[in-house]
Amino acid sequence: MYVILVYDVNEKRVNKVLNICRKYLTWIQRSVFEGEITEGKLYLLKNELKKVIKDDDMVIIFKLDGKFLVEKEVMGKGSADTNVL
Amino acid sequence: MYVILVYDVNEKRVNKVLNICRKYLTWIQRSVFEGEITEGKLYLLKNELKKVIKDDDMVIIFKLDGKFLVEKEVMGKGSADTNVL
Repeated sequence: MYVILVYDVNEKRVNKVLNICRKYLTWIQRSVFEGEITEGKLYLLKNELKKVIKDDDMVIIFKLDGKFLVEKEVMGKGSADTNVL
Repeated sequence: MYVILVYDVNEKRVNKVLNICRKYLTWIQRSVFEGEITEGKLYLLKNELKKVIKDDDMVIIFKLDGKFLVEKEVMGKGSADTNVL
Protein backbone atom coordinates (compact mmCIF):
# COMPACT_ATOMS: atom_id res chain seq x y z
CA MET A 1 0.00 0.00 0.00
CA TYR A 2 1.12 3.55 -0.73
CA VAL A 3 0.09 6.43 1.47
CA ILE A 4 0.26 10.20 1.53
CA LEU A 5 -0.02 11.55 5.05
CA VAL A 6 -0.65 15.22 5.84
CA TYR A 7 -1.10 16.77 9.24
CA ASP A 8 -2.03 20.04 10.85
CA VAL A 9 -1.25 19.77 14.53
CA ASN A 10 -0.67 22.15 17.41
CA GLU A 11 2.84 23.61 17.51
CA LYS A 12 3.47 21.84 20.85
CA ARG A 13 2.97 18.43 19.20
CA VAL A 14 4.55 18.95 15.78
CA ASN A 15 7.91 17.43 16.69
CA LYS A 16 6.36 14.37 18.26
CA VAL A 17 4.16 13.76 15.20
CA LEU A 18 7.11 14.42 12.87
CA ASN A 19 9.32 11.89 14.67
CA ILE A 20 6.59 9.24 14.71
CA CYS A 21 5.91 9.65 10.98
CA ARG A 22 9.63 9.56 10.18
CA LYS A 23 9.82 6.01 11.53
CA TYR A 24 7.36 4.76 8.92
CA LEU A 25 7.30 7.16 5.95
CA THR A 26 9.38 9.63 3.96
CA TRP A 27 9.23 13.34 4.69
CA ILE A 28 8.67 15.31 1.47
CA GLN A 29 7.44 18.69 2.64
CA ARG A 30 6.47 20.43 5.86
CA SER A 31 3.65 18.34 7.35
CA VAL A 32 3.62 15.92 4.40
CA PHE A 33 4.89 12.34 4.29
CA GLU A 34 4.59 9.63 1.69
CA GLY A 35 5.67 6.05 1.18
CA GLU A 36 4.94 2.39 0.81
CA ILE A 37 3.69 0.80 4.01
CA THR A 38 2.10 -2.47 5.10
CA GLU A 39 -1.31 -2.67 6.81
CA GLY A 40 0.48 -3.77 9.97
CA LYS A 41 2.93 -0.87 10.01
CA LEU A 42 0.13 1.60 9.20
CA TYR A 43 -1.78 0.20 12.18
CA LEU A 44 1.24 0.81 14.43
CA LEU A 45 1.75 4.32 13.01
CA LYS A 46 -1.86 5.26 13.62
CA ASN A 47 -1.73 3.89 17.17
CA GLU A 48 1.33 5.96 17.97
CA LEU A 49 -0.29 9.07 16.48
CA LYS A 50 -3.51 8.49 18.44
CA LYS A 51 -1.52 8.64 21.69
CA VAL A 52 -0.15 12.06 20.75
CA ILE A 53 -2.74 14.05 18.82
CA LYS A 54 -5.58 15.96 20.43
CA ASP A 55 -9.04 16.84 19.15
CA ASP A 56 -7.92 20.11 17.58
CA ASP A 57 -5.18 18.33 15.60
CA MET A 58 -5.83 16.76 12.22
CA VAL A 59 -4.11 13.95 10.34
CA ILE A 60 -5.30 12.84 6.92
CA ILE A 61 -4.08 9.62 5.39
CA PHE A 62 -4.66 9.02 1.70
CA LYS A 63 -4.32 5.30 0.99
CA LEU A 64 -3.73 3.85 -2.46
CA ASP A 65 -3.15 0.31 -3.61
CA GLY A 66 0.25 1.23 -4.98
CA LYS A 67 2.65 3.96 -5.93
CA PHE A 68 2.03 3.24 -9.58
CA LEU A 69 -1.44 4.79 -9.28
CA VAL A 70 -0.19 8.29 -8.63
CA GLU A 71 1.83 10.75 -10.64
CA LYS A 72 3.66 13.33 -8.56
CA GLU A 73 4.49 16.75 -9.93
CA VAL A 74 6.60 19.23 -7.98
CA MET A 75 6.62 22.98 -8.63
CA GLY A 76 9.22 25.35 -7.20
CA LYS A 77 11.81 23.95 -4.81
CA GLY A 78 12.64 20.36 -5.74
CA SER A 79 10.87 20.65 -9.08
CA ALA A 80 13.73 18.72 -10.64
CA ASP A 81 12.22 15.91 -8.60
CA THR A 82 9.17 15.79 -10.91
CA ASN A 83 8.75 12.13 -11.49
CA VAL A 84 6.15 9.64 -12.33
CA LEU A 85 5.98 7.28 -9.41
CA MET B 1 -8.64 13.29 -12.80
CA TYR B 2 -8.39 13.57 -9.02
CA VAL B 3 -5.61 15.53 -7.38
CA ILE B 4 -4.22 16.16 -3.94
CA LEU B 5 -2.27 19.40 -3.82
CA VAL B 6 0.03 20.36 -0.94
CA TYR B 7 2.13 23.48 -0.64
CA ASP B 8 4.79 24.99 1.56
CA VAL B 9 5.21 28.59 0.52
CA ASN B 10 6.61 31.75 2.03
CA GLU B 11 4.23 33.46 4.48
CA LYS B 12 4.06 36.51 2.13
CA ARG B 13 2.57 34.34 -0.63
CA VAL B 14 0.31 31.96 1.31
CA ASN B 15 -2.88 33.96 0.77
CA LYS B 16 -2.29 34.32 -2.95
CA VAL B 17 -1.66 30.58 -3.33
CA LEU B 18 -4.66 29.78 -1.13
CA ASN B 19 -6.97 31.95 -3.21
CA ILE B 20 -5.73 30.51 -6.48
CA CYS B 21 -6.18 26.92 -5.30
CA ARG B 22 -9.64 27.71 -3.95
CA LYS B 23 -10.83 28.51 -7.46
CA TYR B 24 -10.08 24.99 -8.64
CA LEU B 25 -10.01 22.61 -5.66
CA THR B 26 -11.45 22.00 -2.19
CA TRP B 27 -9.57 23.11 0.90
CA ILE B 28 -9.32 20.23 3.41
CA GLN B 29 -6.51 21.25 5.74
CA ARG B 30 -3.93 24.01 6.07
CA SER B 31 -1.88 23.91 2.85
CA VAL B 32 -3.80 20.91 1.50
CA PHE B 33 -6.39 20.83 -1.30
CA GLU B 34 -8.09 18.00 -3.12
CA GLY B 35 -10.62 17.50 -5.85
CA GLU B 36 -11.62 16.36 -9.28
CA ILE B 37 -10.15 18.53 -12.04
CA THR B 38 -9.77 18.41 -15.80
CA GLU B 39 -6.40 18.55 -17.56
CA GLY B 40 -7.34 21.97 -18.88
CA LYS B 41 -8.23 23.39 -15.48
CA LEU B 42 -5.11 21.87 -13.94
CA TYR B 43 -3.08 23.59 -16.65
CA LEU B 44 -4.68 26.93 -15.76
CA LEU B 45 -4.16 26.33 -12.03
CA LYS B 46 -0.49 25.55 -12.52
CA ASN B 47 -0.01 28.60 -14.72
CA GLU B 48 -1.51 30.87 -12.07
CA LEU B 49 0.65 29.28 -9.39
CA LYS B 50 3.80 29.65 -11.51
CA LYS B 51 3.22 33.42 -11.65
CA VAL B 52 3.13 33.60 -7.85
CA ILE B 53 5.54 31.07 -6.35
CA LYS B 54 9.26 31.62 -6.00
CA ASP B 55 12.16 29.17 -5.96
CA ASP B 56 12.03 28.66 -2.21
CA ASP B 57 8.32 27.75 -2.37
CA MET B 58 7.14 24.22 -3.03
CA VAL B 59 3.91 22.85 -4.48
CA ILE B 60 3.36 19.12 -4.89
CA ILE B 61 0.51 17.80 -6.98
CA PHE B 62 -0.43 14.15 -6.66
CA LYS B 63 -2.46 13.13 -9.71
CA LEU B 64 -4.68 10.07 -9.86
CA ASP B 65 -7.00 8.79 -12.54
CA GLY B 66 -9.96 9.07 -10.22
CA LYS B 67 -11.19 9.57 -6.69
CA PHE B 68 -12.14 5.92 -6.52
CA LEU B 69 -8.46 4.97 -6.34
CA VAL B 70 -7.89 6.55 -2.95
CA GLU B 71 -9.26 5.89 0.51
CA LYS B 72 -9.09 8.87 2.82
CA GLU B 73 -8.84 8.43 6.58
CA VAL B 74 -9.01 11.39 8.94
CA MET B 75 -7.70 11.32 12.51
CA GLY B 76 -8.50 13.99 15.09
CA LYS B 77 -10.51 17.02 13.98
CA GLY B 78 -12.97 16.03 11.27
CA SER B 79 -12.44 12.33 11.91
CA ALA B 80 -16.17 11.83 11.51
CA ASP B 81 -15.34 12.60 7.89
CA THR B 82 -13.53 9.25 7.50
CA ASN B 83 -14.81 8.02 4.24
CA VAL B 84 -13.91 5.89 1.36
CA LEU B 85 -13.72 8.15 -1.66
